[in-house]
Amino acid sequence: MNRKVLICLLPLALAAGLHGQPSRYVDPFIGTAGMGHTFPGACVPFGSIQLSPDTDTIPHNVGGRYQARVYDHCAGYRHDDPTIVGFSHRHLSGTGHSDLGDILLMPFTGPVRLNPGTADAPEKGYRSRYSHEDETARPGYYAVTLTDEGIRAELTATTRVGVHRYTYPAGSRQQVVLDLGHGIYDYEGKTLWSTLRVENDTLLTGFRLTNGWARTNYTYFAISFSKPLADYGGEDRADIPYNGFWRRFDVKHHFPDMAGRDLAAWFAFAGDEPLVVKVAVSAVDAAGAVRNLEAEANGSFDALAAAAGRLWDGRLGAFEAEGTDAEKTMFYTSLYHTMINPSVYMDVDGRYRGLDGNIHQAEGFTNYTIFSLWDTYRAEHPFLNLFFPSENADMIRSMLAHQQQSALGMLPVWSLMGNDGWCMSGYHALPVLADAIVKGTFTDTEAALKAMVATADNRLYEGMEDYLELGYVPFEKSSTAASTTLEYAYDDWTLYAAARKAGDRQLADRFFRRSRNYRNVFDRATGYARPRYADGRFKDPFDPLQTYGEGFIEGNSANFSFHVPHDVDGMMALMGGEKAFRERLDRLFAEDLDPIYYADNEDIEKECLIGGYVHGNEPSHHVPYLYAWTTEPWKTQYWVREIMNRMYRSGIDGLGGNDDCGQMSAWYLFTAMGFYPVCPGTDIYILGAPYLPYVKIRLPNGRTLEIKAPGVSDRNRYVAGLTINGKEQGDRHSVSHAEILEGGVWEFRMSEKHR
Amino acid sequence: MNRKVLICLLPLALAAGLHGQPSRYVDPFIGTAGMGHTFPGACVPFGSIQLSPDTDTIPHNVGGRYQARVYDHCAGYRHDDPTIVGFSHRHLSGTGHSDLGDILLMPFTGPVRLNPGTADAPEKGYRSRYSHEDETARPGYYAVTLTDEGIRAELTATTRVGVHRYTYPAGSRQQVVLDLGHGIYDYEGKTLWSTLRVENDTLLTGFRLTNGWARTNYTYFAISFSKPLADYGGEDRADIPYNGFWRRFDVKHHFPDMAGRDLAAWFAFAGDEPLVVKVAVSAVDAAGAVRNLEAEANGSFDALAAAAGRLWDGRLGAFEAEGTDAEKTMFYTSLYHTMINPSVYMDVDGRYRGLDGNIHQAEGFTNYTIFSLWDTYRAEHPFLNLFFPSENADMIRSMLAHQQQSALGMLPVWSLMGNDGWCMSGYHALPVLADAIVKGTFTDTEAALKAMVATADNRLYEGMEDYLELGYVPFEKSSTAASTTLEYAYDDWTLYAAARKAGDRQLADRFFRRSRNYRNVFDRATGYARPRYADGRFKDPFDPLQTYGEGFIEGNSANFSFHVPHDVDGMMALMGGEKAFRERLDRLFAEDLDPIYYADNEDIEKECLIGGYVHGNEPSHHVPYLYAWTTEPWKTQYWVREIMNRMYRSGIDGLGGNDDCGQMSAWYLFTAMGFYPVCPGTDIYILGAPYLPYVKIRLPNGRTLEIKAPGVSDRNRYVAGLTINGKEQGDRHSVSHAEILEGGVWEFRMSEKHR
Repeated sequence: MNRKVLICLLPLALAAGLHGQPSRYVDPFIGTAGMGHTFPGACVPFGSIQLSPDTDTIPHNVGGRYQARVYDHCAGYRHDDPTIVGFSHRHLSGTGHSDLGDILLMPFTGPVRLNPGTADAPEKGYRSRYSHEDETARPGYYAVTLTDEGIRAELTATTRVGVHRYTYPAGSRQQVVLDLGHGIYDYEGKTLWSTLRVENDTLLTGFRLTNGWARTNYTYFAISFSKPLADYGGEDRADIPYNGFWRRFDVKHHFPDMAGRDLAAWFAFAGDEPLVVKVAVSAVDAAGAVRNLEAEANGSFDALAAAAGRLWDGRLGAFEAEGTDAEKTMFYTSLYHTMINPSVYMDVDGRYRGLDGNIHQAEGFTNYTIFSLWDTYRAEHPFLNLFFPSENADMIRSMLAHQQQSALGMLPVWSLMGNDGWCMSGYHALPVLADAIVKGTFTDTEAALKAMVATADNRLYEGMEDYLELGYVPFEKSSTAASTTLEYAYDDWTLYAAARKAGDRQLADRFFRRSRNYRNVFDRATGYARPRYADGRFKDPFDPLQTYGEGFIEGNSANFSFHVPHDVDGMMALMGGEKAFRERLDRLFAEDLDPIYYADNEDIEKECLIGGYVHGNEPSHHVPYLYAWTTEPWKTQYWVREIMNRMYRSGIDGLGGNDDCGQMSAWYLFTAMGFYPVCPGTDIYILGAPYLPYVKIRLPNGRTLEIKAPGVSDRNRYVAGLTINGKEQGDRHSVSHAEILEGGVWEFRMSEKHR
Repeated sequence: MNRKVLICLLPLALAAGLHGQPSRYVDPFIGTAGMGHTFPGACVPFGSIQLSPDTDTIPHNVGGRYQARVYDHCAGYRHDDPTIVGFSHRHLSGTGHSDLGDILLMPFTGPVRLNPGTADAPEKGYRSRYSHEDETARPGYYAVTLTDEGIRAELTATTRVGVHRYTYPAGSRQQVVLDLGHGIYDYEGKTLWSTLRVENDTLLTGFRLTNGWARTNYTYFAISFSKPLADYGGEDRADIPYNGFWRRFDVKHHFPDMAGRDLAAWFAFAGDEPLVVKVAVSAVDAAGAVRNLEAEANGSFDALAAAAGRLWDGRLGAFEAEGTDAEKTMFYTSLYHTMINPSVYMDVDGRYRGLDGNIHQAEGFTNYTIFSLWDTYRAEHPFLNLFFPSENADMIRSMLAHQQQSALGMLPVWSLMGNDGWCMSGYHALPVLADAIVKGTFTDTEAALKAMVATADNRLYEGMEDYLELGYVPFEKSSTAASTTLEYAYDDWTLYAAARKAGDRQLADRFFRRSRNYRNVFDRATGYARPRYADGRFKDPFDPLQTYGEGFIEGNSANFSFHVPHDVDGMMALMGGEKAFRERLDRLFAEDLDPIYYADNEDIEKECLIGGYVHGNEPSHHVPYLYAWTTEPWKTQYWVREIMNRMYRSGIDGLGGNDDCGQMSAWYLFTAMGFYPVCPGTDIYILGAPYLPYVKIRLPNGRTLEIKAPGVSDRNRYVAGLTINGKEQGDRHSVSHAEILEGGVWEFRMSEKHR
């Protein structure tokens, strides 16, 4: 944990009583260096706003060439960057693809410069140097001193409003830049259009339309100032052929009706008291943004920041963890990371922009977006489904609305601001829906099944025509044919599970048959999943350690071959039986991987490797738990602790891979508590071993679950025994959803020896 | 009149009885060559849709250089162009600036070519040659044969739906191109973004956002086909850095969810029966377009075309004119041109997009756009105010809503699709509002006055700060300082007139004083209006015949000095008294203008000159009527007939200047009936002499007015006497609004000798 945070929070913590303030353990800087791709700024749980500093503007490509640094800046902030460009209102948490960075504000006192400048020469633009010494962050609050002009900038947020407080040096000119051309994943022309209206001397409205990763993204906004404008001006930095305005008005100064492709404006204020700026967003219209502003952002900056902190404490307080400070920091920071994305995507009046571009009214649910489903179906959604089932059910309702609005009739693959980003493969909304149906947290099964079938039967989707014909996606049709087949087969199995639960036997049978398709890409000779051509031939030559070009997406066959969570026994047989399977697992963790397999590879870096096991990307996340099916289940206990120690460190570069909208963090949390959802869509969690000596959870049904593992340590990492509510559990390796919800006390007896 | 039209209409005309079908006299081709800038396509009165062929794609500029031909193509169609690019849904009627051309469709049978090709080589793209021999147009209907592939294309429209019927050669492949990148006033990047969804096998939806003359223009659409799609594909011809879709789908073929900056798509259909395509537009959303489609476009093509014809006959039938066929053609075509723009800008459910970009609900009125007010305050709006007062009042309500939604708090200057195009000078919404208030056709005077004052007092507007300070706009602040001062002074006078009518004496006094400001730009030494610097000096040297650079907008001082319609006596005194004033008028019409004054001048061409009098542009339109203030009022009778004969000819190049949204045509109609609103904002019309021997008008109050001028001819052009309802009128030179509305019979005694 950042020392500044502790110092800053201490008085507050003492006032409210430490117990009620788990947010003091959260360090938003974790993951802001290295691979985490998290941001340090202010937000509330599942909020629309993620108000955070952007530390550079990296165009996606220059002269047609992709720029690698854009990958590093997915969340806008890199801890090692020397300057802050400004504070923008929307950020993705932990993704490996980037977008957003909408509506950038930056305070300044000197001459007006409507360009960001460069990291080398910040004085040429509006950006500023800063020091980590002056930087502070806690859930719902961020502050930094912009050292070039000595301005203190503080940020907080509500669900739909970002709130800035700028304290300028006494006697200086108080000014703010608003850059509507700024964006993350920027490229020449990402901002398709923007407008800006000065409604009166304390209110601005406007919108911008962007074509980033979110193909058609509407960001309307309303901006209020705590004191009246003394002066303002603006400029469209792009060259537009005709604009009738210039003839009749001085369009660069005091002109209240601006628009353009690359618009920037500045605003000046009188007086020495700090300036508070409140920025509401809406995807619907400017009137919606104004309503969001009015509904949420009354009150002072301090009051709003305190409210944001209380919201976080309320959520985080469902968990009470014991451990070292570093362990608690990692636990609560992980918890924090599971509740940034998905994010609310709806105005206070229930209106939201649908996938069809139309405005819809959410009836009886909150609409969410940012579903990174290839990642989050694994642990993030199961985590929410278990501990925040009402939010998870609304996320499912949002997915069903998405499906209804889709021209393709498909559930989301990567829901992003009323768009589908179509990032990664599979149709992993199905495991999310199935998991909720099977666990009883989502009951509109009929609607869900209909949407699931429409999705899984869409023949336009990658390789589906062939998949239905041949039983696998052929390699000539898709460069990720082998992993896609594995993923489809698992997703199909979850539809089977949901249909079975709903009593639709015919549907269940059909998709059970499809779920066996994983077999069609297994090369029985080698026991590896391997891409196959339409004529049945396997790709040859074939390297199961190579990530690219071998038919798998962001993973190699050595890892991905284990992606049959729904039929581990079947997979085991294909690999040659229990012993061969176990040895394959052993080899994966022990592999001395040649650097050729991870050099220059965005998806596998050395830091996220344990042998040949890649924790930094998702396909392997369930793999350490597969020892439960072998004669040596204790190896799960061994390896998960290794992964916890090596992949999750409470420092700025503490995450061993992209957090991926909470998936990495949810893995941490499950594993810390001693169990993991290897196969979402079942009601079963596989037991590992607790990482912390004590976790107490306030379950959504009001009960309490205490998980005790006294004396647990790197040395005492093995489970010698488990009692649940006093009852000895013997040598079991799983628990059911119902058993968790029953609550009570689980007591693990830890040992330095495995059983 | 085009012979084809007569032949085509004859059977229909006979069936319904000729009397009820004045639309048979309308020739939509008038003005499509030369300077008229009209279009021949299909629309209904004041409809949102103007579905018409575009005959070339002229970029606004190439390599930064303005292209003169874009001016010729303001309405999309030039009669002398050899090819048709396609049929697009929105067109301006008669403007001198261009935009729209939204949602282009083109039928084809050959290989798919998603580019328009060129006029020289149409076979390289989707455009086609055509012949005027195969071309037909009447109100609400247009047809042409696309000769390259032998496709017959027919068009009709409802208020919000364009309807196409394509008859393909038997056995050919029936296909249609939809080009969402096409536009009038095109330039690289005018289309900011577009989307296209195949909702099902007979319905498309989508939108495009353009930055043309209308700065931020939303066009949502819904397209239905009369038979199911057999196949389709599309392509974004622009290069977009990232698009996740391509990985998962075959995005160029059968992919129902397209988007891009320069999108084009093709659709194929089976069978030989003609294809009917219905295209609804909305500025609100795609759902609104679908509702518009459902509400308006039921029925067959023939039924809809017949309904469109009936709508026109209903409107045109309020007038019954006698004269030669050519005269009647000109009369009814003029009438037709007064009812194309302004245009409805609202969905069937009353929602519309306001100037603030937000969606508004029109309460109790129909929202209109396309207010070319610098032109139309003169005769078009007075014409509507007199004969279609309910539509005119709704146009005023639309202007008031615009003012409420304006960041500048101003009434429209040039209302264009929820934008202000700020074309031309002045704040001429004021005379439109004042005219309606004074004539009693708009009664919410309080709201109107408030909006008028806010507009006239806006100090940000061109030169207003100085105008209020100095009493004129100084030349160093505006290149059109002299004309702008004249226009402001007149507009101020109309606010005085409205305030007087409302009994607000203080307000009336204030604006009466402002209305005298015209005096401040009169050089008493020469009797000419002349631009002046802030220090009081007049521009020197100064050429009153020169249009550019001398302080006037689209006119010279010789014409513009007469722009004091609200105080002709005062202006006369400044010019040196009645004799000097009369001689100035004589000189204007008799001037032998040196070609240097009109060569290479878009605003003055030789064809629109009578001496030095410029009828082809608006500032002079009231001038021939100013003889009424002199001792030789008969000269009005002489010159207006000259103008009618020379500036309005019933041929394709028959208009002696841009029709300017009906202004030129409204001048024709007033003059043909024998009176003209020299000063809108008074209830007085100045008498000229009827052009036609008989016009009978069904007045909006249900009464009838017959205007008889038996024996009128070029020879018998002078009024020897007038009786109104049998009562001799003596030597009067004006009539009041009330006298017109009283109806009855006016009988002009025509003579070859003036009185």
